[in-house]
Amino acid sequence: MTLRVGIIGAGPSGMAQLRAFDSASQNGADIPEIMCFEKQSDWGGQWNSSWRTGLDEHGEPVHSSMYRHLWSNGPKECLEFSDYSFDEHFGRAISSFPPREVLFDYIKGRVEKSDVRKYVQFNTVARHTSYNQDTQEFTLTVENLITGVTTDHVFDKLVVSSGHFSTPTVPEFKGIGSFPGEVLHAHDFRGAERFSGKNMLLIGASYSAEDIGMQAHKMGAASITFSYRSNPMGFDWPENTVERPLITEFEGKTAHFSDGTCGEFDAVVLCTGYQHKYPFLPSDLSLTSKNVLYPGNLYKGVVWQENTNLFYLGAQDQYYTFNMFDAQAWFARDVMTGAIELPSLAQREADIQLWLERQAALADHNAEADFQSDYLRELIAATDYPPFDLHAVSQLFKDWMHHKETDILGYRDMTHQSVVTGTMATKHHTRWINAMDDSLDRYLNGPSQDVDTGTLTALTSEFSAK
Amino acid sequence: MTLRVGIIGAGPSGMAQLRAFDSASQNGADIPEIMCFEKQSDWGGQWNSSWRTGLDEHGEPVHSSMYRHLWSNGPKECLEFSDYSFDEHFGRAISSFPPREVLFDYIKGRVEKSDVRKYVQFNTVARHTSYNQDTQEFTLTVENLITGVTTDHVFDKLVVSSGHFSTPTVPEFKGIGSFPGEVLHAHDFRGAERFSGKNMLLIGASYSAEDIGMQAHKMGAASITFSYRSNPMGFDWPENTVERPLITEFEGKTAHFSDGTCGEFDAVVLCTGYQHKYPFLPSDLSLTSKNVLYPGNLYKGVVWQENTNLFYLGAQDQYYTFNMFDAQAWFARDVMTGAIELPSLAQREADIQLWLERQAALADHNAEADFQSDYLRELIAATDYPPFDLHAVSQLFKDWMHHKETDILGYRDMTHQSVVTGTMATKHHTRWINAMDDSLDRYLNGPSQDVDTGTLTALTSEFSAK
Repeated sequence: MTLRVGIIGAGPSGMAQLRAFDSASQNGADIPEIMCFEKQSDWGGQWNSSWRTGLDEHGEPVHSSMYRHLWSNGPKECLEFSDYSFDEHFGRAISSFPPREVLFDYIKGRVEKSDVRKYVQFNTVARHTSYNQDTQEFTLTVENLITGVTTDHVFDKLVVSSGHFSTPTVPEFKGIGSFPGEVLHAHDFRGAERFSGKNMLLIGASYSAEDIGMQAHKMGAASITFSYRSNPMGFDWPENTVERPLITEFEGKTAHFSDGTCGEFDAVVLCTGYQHKYPFLPSDLSLTSKNVLYPGNLYKGVVWQENTNLFYLGAQDQYYTFNMFDAQAWFARDVMTGAIELPSLAQREADIQLWLERQAALADHNAEADFQSDYLRELIAATDYPPFDLHAVSQLFKDWMHHKETDILGYRDMTHQSVVTGTMATKHHTRWINAMDDSLDRYLNGPSQDVDTGTLTALTSEFSAK
Repeated sequence: MTLRVGIIGAGPSGMAQLRAFDSASQNGADIPEIMCFEKQSDWGGQWNSSWRTGLDEHGEPVHSSMYRHLWSNGPKECLEFSDYSFDEHFGRAISSFPPREVLFDYIKGRVEKSDVRKYVQFNTVARHTSYNQDTQEFTLTVENLITGVTTDHVFDKLVVSSGHFSTPTVPEFKGIGSFPGEVLHAHDFRGAERFSGKNMLLIGASYSAEDIGMQAHKMGAASITFSYRSNPMGFDWPENTVERPLITEFEGKTAHFSDGTCGEFDAVVLCTGYQHKYPFLPSDLSLTSKNVLYPGNLYKGVVWQENTNLFYLGAQDQYYTFNMFDAQAWFARDVMTGAIELPSLAQREADIQLWLERQAALADHNAEADFQSDYLRELIAATDYPPFDLHAVSQLFKDWMHHKETDILGYRDMTHQSVVTGTMATKHHTRWINAMDDSLDRYLNGPSQDVDTGTLTALTSEFSAK
């Protein structure tokens, strides 16, 4: 009997799983019966963004946390598919930090080339899963959000690729209920235009805070104040930007910080992260983890330890993204088909523990990038996913982090070299700080929005002189 | 074997169901095994409001649509429990239109007096329901949101009291994705203070639009524009308020209306209503309905037509609220215990059809109020819920609607007489337009915030002269 595989979510991870089977099929292998369920009306996950906030048109939680004027915050060379290059998709070199629509176009390009859309049921949300130990089958209840009809499907293998950057973590703050200004989580941030002239408070010290803060600066916010729990980000911020420690309480529109300072604010953006949330899974199949590079309970970061018919893709914190999902999807595919034989429970546990110990010892961001590179190296070696120079990508991450430290507003103007094709990225026609049109068309065809292209930052000069 | 009853939701309807069984118990009856599941950490449903928007601390959709400075928009005399009067709760007469916290205190008072909190599992969300035709049992999967643990419970009867004013209906509008200002649904509105000096666009022509619009006016909005699909509300609005027909598109911060006019706006509030949403039910048990006074498929508005072990409370559009939920809960209780014998499927269908025909012929709001009064009359006659003068309440609704037409900013300053105790409401110490503190303490103890109590509107003079 043909293996039956269910995939929950058709974002980058689910698309990688579909492509992994497509690749095997093109190499002459028999592939399983596949059904993929996607609650949105199109694939792309986070990249399929929406103006909506909170709940979508069907009353389901909005998936995407992306916003207008979101440009990649990491070099595209760090996430390039090794079986589908940027050169192949765009037919020319492009810059290293494209806006959302451009990257969305890229990831769609690969799966549109394959004939895998037929496997996806759109507007269909996973509601409930049960596992029968005797038959070793999953029964998955899904709901068609257009018709409202619920149906049950039986699978031998289940892939959870629903992402973990969609459900906000929102702590309580004393007095926030009577803060008279706008309060929103980063998940519901859709653009900073309306914060022009405003005094902004961003709670958090990671990617969301940094990027939304600098978006607000770019769009003319009067001031940006970050509040951190553990450590400040410590970038070389613009003059209107400061970092403060944790908030002790709100009093009207005033926020008090633990260093005794306070300030009046017009709006608060809670950049307080995301939680793993799998409401369609019973608790014994549901991953519980902070956002870390190596969640426990997943062998090779993919296979559910207590039930090896269950797979998670992209459940890690991410330096690598699309190419890591690929490596995981290829690995999951080969475990499902038996091409990779799993070691015993105890051996798997020992392997997980090794990674967890190594994770616990990571000294800094550079070490984290190397850690995830090593993780990918193991995965890729186990399958036929086209290998690429992981050491070079690790170095790209380090260069990128150095650029951010040197010029937080200018790092996106830097260019990097592809490890897949060797192509050097082009310098974009418009500096990020001046780019007020994030459309694919404007990105590809210009013209530049730089008004004073003679004025380059110290960093850009330094690096372009290399 | 003792009947097992599951109740989903401990808002006003679920609390009414608990109280209905408590009342029977106090009258010496044996009552079923009861389990009630509430996803919030306290009971009260909508009245247990939160500063949060979108998703709550556990990543569940926020339930309450209420906001700071929400005062009852209907006379409290229209919703008074006939077994627990406002006089009994507060020990004195109060005004007719109290703020949220005061009404929340009132509904908690009744169930705190009963010993029913023990039946409620808080922080517990209903996830999935299946019905076994052979055993006539429901299996309900719930998740404890604190521990993440999912458990199954078996019930003979299931009561759906999860409400239908929590899941927004959000239509698409051309160009809204690039509107640079704030866009939110009424469900996520938490206060109008930040709209002071702003030009507000409210899409919708029902209670949410009217109340949020006038909140914005009260808090100093520069202008309020309502956009209606079918008919304008037609109240005697303040000078800064206009009504326009439907929006054809947004272009930047400009909204175009179907009458050819346009305007620039700082923020858009989508007062576009709510949808019935029961993600924990299979489609054959899930109510699909617009927000109407008599949804089909429910005998006496309560009993699921195809499976009479399933009950819905409060699934109607509502003139009556708390007292209607009571009448329904008492009725559901007596159907469950067999005290009320259900007629045949065909007879029930004929009864539903009669009500649907009558609903289809309703001419105006006055007729709607009479319709729902007649509905309650039937329910109350069937049980031992203490009867009250429904004709008098119907007249209260009509007086209230007349007051709104006469003075949309002043109707809450009017007083009405209780049909339960005969008590005349007191005139509140502060006119609604001047009341900037909606706390229980300020409400009960004052002092007045009226700065110029000599200046009364024409309406208030007219009616107080009666």
